[in-house]
Amino acid sequence: MFDFPFAIGYLWALTFTLIHTDGRARAGMILTDRGEIPTPIFMPVGTQGAVKAVEQRELDELGARIILGNTYHLYLRPGPALIEKAGGLHTFMNWNGPILTDSGGYQVFSLSDLRGISEEGVDFKSHLDGSAHKFTPEKVIDLQRVLGSDIMMVLDECTPYPCEERYAIESNEMTMRWAGRCKNMFERTRPLYGKNQALFAIVQGSTYASIREASTIALVDMGFDGYAIGGLSVGEPTDIMYEMTEVCTTILPQDRPRYLMGVGTPENLLESIECGIDMFDCVLPTRNGRNGLFFTQRGKINIRNAAYAEDFNPIDEECECYTCRTFTRAYIRHLFKAREIMALQLASIHNLAFYLWLCNSARQAILNDCYRVWKSERLNSLSAEVAELTL
Amino acid sequence: MFDFPFAIGYLWALTFTLIHTDGRARAGMILTDRGEIPTPIFMPVGTQGAVKAVEQRELDELGARIILGNTYHLYLRPGPALIEKAGGLHTFMNWNGPILTDSGGYQVFSLSDLRGISEEGVDFKSHLDGSAHKFTPEKVIDLQRVLGSDIMMVLDECTPYPCEERYAIESNEMTMRWAGRCKNMFERTRPLYGKNQALFAIVQGSTYASIREASTIALVDMGFDGYAIGGLSVGEPTDIMYEMTEVCTTILPQDRPRYLMGVGTPENLLESIECGIDMFDCVLPTRNGRNGLFFTQRGKINIRNAAYAEDFNPIDEECECYTCRTFTRAYIRHLFKAREIMALQLASIHNLAFYLWLCNSARQAILNDCYRVWKSERLNSLSAEVAELTL
Repeated sequence: MFDFPFAIGYLWALTFTLIHTDGRARAGMILTDRGEIPTPIFMPVGTQGAVKAVEQRELDELGARIILGNTYHLYLRPGPALIEKAGGLHTFMNWNGPILTDSGGYQVFSLSDLRGISEEGVDFKSHLDGSAHKFTPEKVIDLQRVLGSDIMMVLDECTPYPCEERYAIESNEMTMRWAGRCKNMFERTRPLYGKNQALFAIVQGSTYASIREASTIALVDMGFDGYAIGGLSVGEPTDIMYEMTEVCTTILPQDRPRYLMGVGTPENLLESIECGIDMFDCVLPTRNGRNGLFFTQRGKINIRNAAYAEDFNPIDEECECYTCRTFTRAYIRHLFKAREIMALQLASIHNLAFYLWLCNSARQAILNDCYRVWKSERLNSLSAEVAELTL
Repeated sequence: MFDFPFAIGYLWALTFTLIHTDGRARAGMILTDRGEIPTPIFMPVGTQGAVKAVEQRELDELGARIILGNTYHLYLRPGPALIEKAGGLHTFMNWNGPILTDSGGYQVFSLSDLRGISEEGVDFKSHLDGSAHKFTPEKVIDLQRVLGSDIMMVLDECTPYPCEERYAIESNEMTMRWAGRCKNMFERTRPLYGKNQALFAIVQGSTYASIREASTIALVDMGFDGYAIGGLSVGEPTDIMYEMTEVCTTILPQDRPRYLMGVGTPENLLESIECGIDMFDCVLPTRNGRNGLFFTQRGKINIRNAAYAEDFNPIDEECECYTCRTFTRAYIRHLFKAREIMALQLASIHNLAFYLWLCNSARQAILNDCYRVWKSERLNSLSAEVAELTL
């Protein structure tokens, strides 16, 4: 219930203004060289330089303020040489808003044929063609300079769940040293395309509060433009995810953005915003959309359900996206049954619209000092139709 | 080189004005209750109530003036009952421009498990679930009344190539009797949604000029809103296709539109326009697009070709579509290599833009009395880069 808008832009490659807090929940504004990002924000995932089934002009129309690219995927295909020739990822894909690039650490551990982790870095074989590659902290900074993302991420080891405490400690210590090396490399290099690039650190520590604390303290001590919380939403119970998130946000500085990586469901977003998270990314809205699962203000809809066969209402009465303004549930269900490509387009557009609306509405509630009340109303609505659907 | 603009609207469910001729080539204007259609025109194919990978607003943006729907597919899925409840196909798919529906005859013969043709109609099993169905001339009119298409097609038997003369004669005689039954049914029924619906006949006769002549004369004698030429582009040599087309257009009345079904390549369109054809439909632009083959004003491009890996030009310098205004060949090639859904969207948009541009440019050339010169320039350009690509 207190406002302290301030910006320490001169020290940082990215300005963050904390506009208002409501409990731990925060409404802020990130300023990059490519535009403003109101927080809390959801970032659509454009792994390979494209948000699946959504055109760039449609992202604009949806009001997407920042999207994700992935260093691992773009490094393997089309490769950094081509993207540098194109003038960076923004020019290559013709998206002029901010881009955050994941370092590729998570994908090396989850997608590739992992050949070994050492202090120096990580050896892996491409999931595309089996070719051998190495990522080091320095290399992923170099690669992200070539991509030209507005927000770069450090290289980290994302521990699986469950994870032995001893392993989590040692892994986190190495992740901290890698973060230091990333920061050094970041300071020794410059953007290639005349726009500032920020660097975010990643807190690890599995489900151990003490390791998470140590990780957070160490990273804050080094000083980064923003802080991500990694290694969550990897199979642990949801309440442990919230607990770990709160351990981190309690320590993280108020004047820097916080990003909870790879999270999550609408419910996850609302709870994490209450813990003080500002930024989210997740493939859930687009991936679920492609499977016919729509998020609405009144719960989830599996459009293949026979209940929608003759339903001439929009997916979500209250949504203003192209899909909801234009088409009925019956028509969209037909597109899914007939395996029409447009089904994937319309579903992705709507689910992204929903996630962006959810974050924007959360922000309004924070600004109005009614976040908790708003959140519990939302959670009730979100679960209502899910129950209905089990009939 | 003579103008005779006239319209006999009061007799017909559709007005056709022949604005100008240049040799046999014609520039005209079809007027339906849902809008004007300048001819020559290409009609994007929306078989199942959706043009594959292209949103309805994108069809508008492309300047599509009429699209196709298919009675066979829509009858099987989602079924006429649902479309009637929706208020017709236009409302169901939210496309407010004109729609032409194929009668389903062609699909019954090409897609379904055909169980028998008799004077009464055709028995078939669905390609989706094997269920048994029957189409009669009367039934396809009924179905198209339910769809509410602006232009309906008669039921015909599309003979394969090659085809014995005896079979072609007997098949055509039955197709003529079916056309008569369709016309009777058409006259005994009314539109369901308050908009006029026209009925086009289909000339058959395989590759036999005498049967084509007989077929055309018989249908013109019955009197239809327009005349289609069917049973071509089914494997016969191209020059036979043009020859058969010209046999028909020589006999067909000047004051009614002519539609060459399922044709074809850009070259086929240009030659057929010279024979006096007004309307075309084909899956080629969208299907080829989905395979990475782009049509341009300077020839075809297979975007997977390594030559385009670092090509930062648009697909077609001279094209004004979203794809060409926004993205490079290198980026689109990456989308195809990475199997991104957006590749299919961008390719479909561009290839439809090309086909629509081609017909529109042909129309301008006819109006300027320079069709033959323009056509030969076009044919040279179209074949130029194809040669280059074989290097």
